[in-house]
Amino acid sequence: MTDPIPAILDRIDADQSRAQDRLKELLRIPSISTDPEHDDDCETAADWLVAELTHLGFDASKRTTPGHPMVVAHGGAGDRHVLFYGHYDVQPVDPLSLWNRDPFDPAIDQTPRGPVIRGRGASDDKGQLMTFLEACRAWKDETGGLPCRITILFEGEEESGSPSLVPFLKANKEELTAELALICDSGLYDDRVPAIVTTLRGLLGEELTITGPDRDLHSGIYGGPAINPARVLTRILGNLHDDQGRVAIPGFYDGVGEPPSQVKQGWKDLGFSTEAFLGDIGLSHPAGEVGRTGLEQLWSRPTAEINGISAGYTGAGFKTVLPSAATAKVSFRLVGGQDPLRLREAFRDWVIAQMPPDCHVTFKDHGAAPASTMATDSPIFAATQLALTEEWGHQAAFVGAGGSIPIAGYFQQVLGMESLLTGFARDDDAIHSPNEKYDVQSFHKGIRSWARVLGRIA
Amino acid sequence: MTDPIPAILDRIDADQSRAQDRLKELLRIPSISTDPEHDDDCETAADWLVAELTHLGFDASKRTTPGHPMVVAHGGAGDRHVLFYGHYDVQPVDPLSLWNRDPFDPAIDQTPRGPVIRGRGASDDKGQLMTFLEACRAWKDETGGLPCRITILFEGEEESGSPSLVPFLKANKEELTAELALICDSGLYDDRVPAIVTTLRGLLGEELTITGPDRDLHSGIYGGPAINPARVLTRILGNLHDDQGRVAIPGFYDGVGEPPSQVKQGWKDLGFSTEAFLGDIGLSHPAGEVGRTGLEQLWSRPTAEINGISAGYTGAGFKTVLPSAATAKVSFRLVGGQDPLRLREAFRDWVIAQMPPDCHVTFKDHGAAPASTMATDSPIFAATQLALTEEWGHQAAFVGAGGSIPIAGYFQQVLGMESLLTGFARDDDAIHSPNEKYDVQSFHKGIRSWARVLGRIA
Repeated sequence: MTDPIPAILDRIDADQSRAQDRLKELLRIPSISTDPEHDDDCETAADWLVAELTHLGFDASKRTTPGHPMVVAHGGAGDRHVLFYGHYDVQPVDPLSLWNRDPFDPAIDQTPRGPVIRGRGASDDKGQLMTFLEACRAWKDETGGLPCRITILFEGEEESGSPSLVPFLKANKEELTAELALICDSGLYDDRVPAIVTTLRGLLGEELTITGPDRDLHSGIYGGPAINPARVLTRILGNLHDDQGRVAIPGFYDGVGEPPSQVKQGWKDLGFSTEAFLGDIGLSHPAGEVGRTGLEQLWSRPTAEINGISAGYTGAGFKTVLPSAATAKVSFRLVGGQDPLRLREAFRDWVIAQMPPDCHVTFKDHGAAPASTMATDSPIFAATQLALTEEWGHQAAFVGAGGSIPIAGYFQQVLGMESLLTGFARDDDAIHSPNEKYDVQSFHKGIRSWARVLGRIA
Repeated sequence: MTDPIPAILDRIDADQSRAQDRLKELLRIPSISTDPEHDDDCETAADWLVAELTHLGFDASKRTTPGHPMVVAHGGAGDRHVLFYGHYDVQPVDPLSLWNRDPFDPAIDQTPRGPVIRGRGASDDKGQLMTFLEACRAWKDETGGLPCRITILFEGEEESGSPSLVPFLKANKEELTAELALICDSGLYDDRVPAIVTTLRGLLGEELTITGPDRDLHSGIYGGPAINPARVLTRILGNLHDDQGRVAIPGFYDGVGEPPSQVKQGWKDLGFSTEAFLGDIGLSHPAGEVGRTGLEQLWSRPTAEINGISAGYTGAGFKTVLPSAATAKVSFRLVGGQDPLRLREAFRDWVIAQMPPDCHVTFKDHGAAPASTMATDSPIFAATQLALTEEWGHQAAFVGAGGSIPIAGYFQQVLGMESLLTGFARDDDAIHSPNEKYDVQSFHKGIRSWARVLGRIA
């Protein structure tokens, strides 16, 4: 049989503009999972994917959960069986004023670095998951079918802590277990070098609200004797790090460890420039733990970050109010064997121990997932590395990732299935930020990459 | 000539419900001075007052400023000449969800402690200024005129730092200078005891915005090496006070001093209960400087307070964002000879010295006014104390005030005119807070008080 890959790649090249139109259609659905006002939009996005997958010959269905639905689909046949994972939900879009267009009216923008598809979710993760669908489409259109057995799982709660995921995996263990999971939610190493992620940081999300007086007070009448919860909150959060940039919660570094020396060597060989990395976002000084390289701070060291804080009057002008409550959202990136549930308790205990008289703190759980380390010995790893190297003309790098893709850990724990993470996002995609984009080249070469990977796997 | 006071008081008693209706009419105008969306409402409130004053026989006019207009009026005749000051602007109303009615649709609410007029500005300061207008009305209706020469000055920027006030006083010095200013923007000592304020804290308002990365970042991709402005802001504000509750800015206590011993003795004689004061707002522990009484913390010690703070994602759910900026509104209550302009510089220097590499801070000036000490030797002071004591049946107390009424200092500095501050607000009026109210009794006895004060002054 002739190698179908050249014809498939030609087909992908010829179909570029229609592929972009299909992605734009999906991007127009404002499926913000964390905001209850967008519940219906999440349903709509799931329905859209079921229809697309059905059209591609998959046996696809929308599966209800207590939260947003999952999309599950089965296609192809053969000995090799992979599961492909992506998520159709997106981050909120505020501050809306910083977008240069409606986040849900996507379009191709010309930039000095080439054309990009601009819109919320373009890179995280709708653009990425569509690279795989479009690769499947090219295989089907060219050869009449898929080259191997493929199960697809699209989630709608990745941006809001995946509360329904583990129960769903447990309830559908047999149906969802494949030889290996392909997860497309990560980036290129740089514009030219594709990457396979072999370590991922975990994530712990917490929200704390400190209350004091039973109502907002006038700072003239009560300022002095009345406790101000905003003062208590800033004092606590201001002590979250010590002078060396280390997190000050007792026991926080239990289980952190150091990466193996050959891994650290591999990172050195990448020639990563912390200066260039930070320069892209207008910074010049690494602000993490003193004595650690930029890549260590990103890939092998845990963090604590304030993601949001609010109290009192924050509108235009001024209001001399003593707020009755102050709130912060705090998250921790975890590495190695850090136990998220134990850290949640340690964080809460640490905060509670600092409550002054008359103040009360409540906590809200925003998800917890441990860090992951991939097993890289599957033949599919080698096949994928080869296919990516062929498409990009540079050896695919094994990298760490600072972000959290808890799904890899869940696949391992619940299904006993290892994962391979690769993707085509770029550092400047502004995911989770205003003006998110996905390079047209990422989208196009991403589709070509998956077409080649499927061929190599099969 | 018969003493007209008994008939005037009877008239005030008979006119109660119409007086309330007139106040409600003024309260319906949402004259929030700090919010540019309400500029027109401030004009409307000024027009309404000009019309009322004209109806009362005053020569009244609205006077433009670069900000909201002043209302100036002249009435009566004779040797004695007082100026009456009040402000028609009000505080913002957020959080709106905590109001039990539309803040600008006032009504009489029955409460366990008696009927109250509920609405934004009911106590601060529309209800209070209307006590004086209604007293003038009763004098005019009963005797055909006012008992002495009265100049009226109503301001529309008191809640937003009074930017136009000093230039206006300077430009209209001769027209506005009287023997003494009567300022009605303070409270009773308690439900039964009227009070004349003899010391006032000053106020310094500052807003600071710390910026770092040139856009919001994903905390997975950048968390570690990228500086987080929210972390920088909480660290700085968390160090605003030391462990003794003292403000940590170098030089902050320069000029603070101690009140004279007879003043401190007078405060002791009041039998103030810090426990009861804090108990009213759900607190039990004085949170100000260690080793100071509750009244000292309120009346003779300076403070630093966070009035508002915001950064990152503060909506429902969670967003793993590293915010590119963090903002806080901070105010200082000043006492004695503290120099607000020097403290502004000291605060800014203190913040700037704590900026890490890659972070930049900008400041916004939200007003500065020194503390004031009243000269209590005018015969009008004695007359007012006597009239208040007659109306309330308890000796009017000389008290300090924790709030800032910078106008008294401006009258002193610009016009060389001393002020007398009295008013009928109560501690639980919730001024600057949701559900602001003014007791019907405060309003009614306030009108009667002014009617008596005008009689005694004349």
